Amino acid sequence: MSYFKSFMLANSAYVDLHGTAHLPLKPKTRVAIVTCMDSRLHVAQALGLALGDAHILRNAGGRVTDDMIRSLVISQQQMGTREIVVLHHTDCGAQTFTNQSFADHIQEKLGVDVSDHDFLPFQDVVESVREDMAILQASPLIPDDVDINGAVYDVDTGKMTQVFK
Amino acid sequence: MSYFKSFMLANSAYVDLHGTAHLPLKPKTRVAIVTCMDSRLHVAQALGLALGDAHILRNAGGRVTDDMIRSLVISQQQMGTREIVVLHHTDCGAQTFTNQSFADHIQEKLGVDVSDHDFLPFQDVVESVREDMAILQASPLIPDDVDINGAVYDVDTGKMTQVFK
Repeated sequence: MSYFKSFMLANSAYVDLHGTAHLPLKPKTRVAIVTCMDSRLHVAQALGLALGDAHILRNAGGRVTDDMIRSLVISQQQMGTREIVVLHHTDCGAQTFTNQSFADHIQEKLGVDVSDHDFLPFQDVVESVREDMAILQASPLIPDDVDINGAVYDVDTGKMTQVFK
Repeated sequence: MSYFKSFMLANSAYVDLHGTAHLPLKPKTRVAIVTCMDSRLHVAQALGLALGDAHILRNAGGRVTDDMIRSLVISQQQMGTREIVVLHHTDCGAQTFTNQSFADHIQEKLGVDVSDHDFLPFQDVVESVREDMAILQASPLIPDDVDINGAVYDVDTGKMTQVFK
């Protein structure tokens, strides 16, 4: 059974309710939010975003990888964003493994050697936000006047707590 | 002026309305959605997702990069997802430049040579969905029995249209 059909059905209802509106390509608040793929975080609702407000970038952990930098450079240089929020969260999947244990698991399940991959696990969610803010600040591709803030989202209460550099 | 404070304020209201609920780390539908950072797409609303339903992965274009594969392997092998939806959209920022024009722009604005970077622009949004579904199918890190579907989201109407392989 595939859930894709359910999503298409829900989308039909969304279209009926949504109506047609043309919003500009460039986000209104000029903010890009870097966060995790976690299913218990619905970014727009949790941060009060309307359609068209902000770019939302999500990977495992909400980590600042090369691909995240690629996306942020496009966001900033092509679509005018000037502020970044790094938002990690409690009870993250990235806290449930080490590179070694995960590589062993992949070797056993898929027969692929990924022992040279960094899957970017972390232990301390406040430290991981700080690390990723520091990577952004050090990047020559992110201008120095870009405003960078960080926070931790509690998946049980929905509450964001600011992380200072 | 930073929008971060507005997000923290909106979040306080969200917390008041939301209440505390513990949802499991593993997504209920066992689906991971790969899509774009675009501000005009609110994935949960558009696909009818409740909190806890599905992983949502977003970068510039919704492209299947190495970092996207990293995230999907964690999603599948650590948190049990077995279905992927690749969702690109109309009027995408990734359609507004070429690697050459963008590298010239970055050189001029930031003084950094990124002429060896692929920023993954595309012209045809149906083809880009097909390309990314094909990358997933070819990856030794994505099991053959994972269900992969694709669609294009219309940012003006909110409507998803399926893309067949």
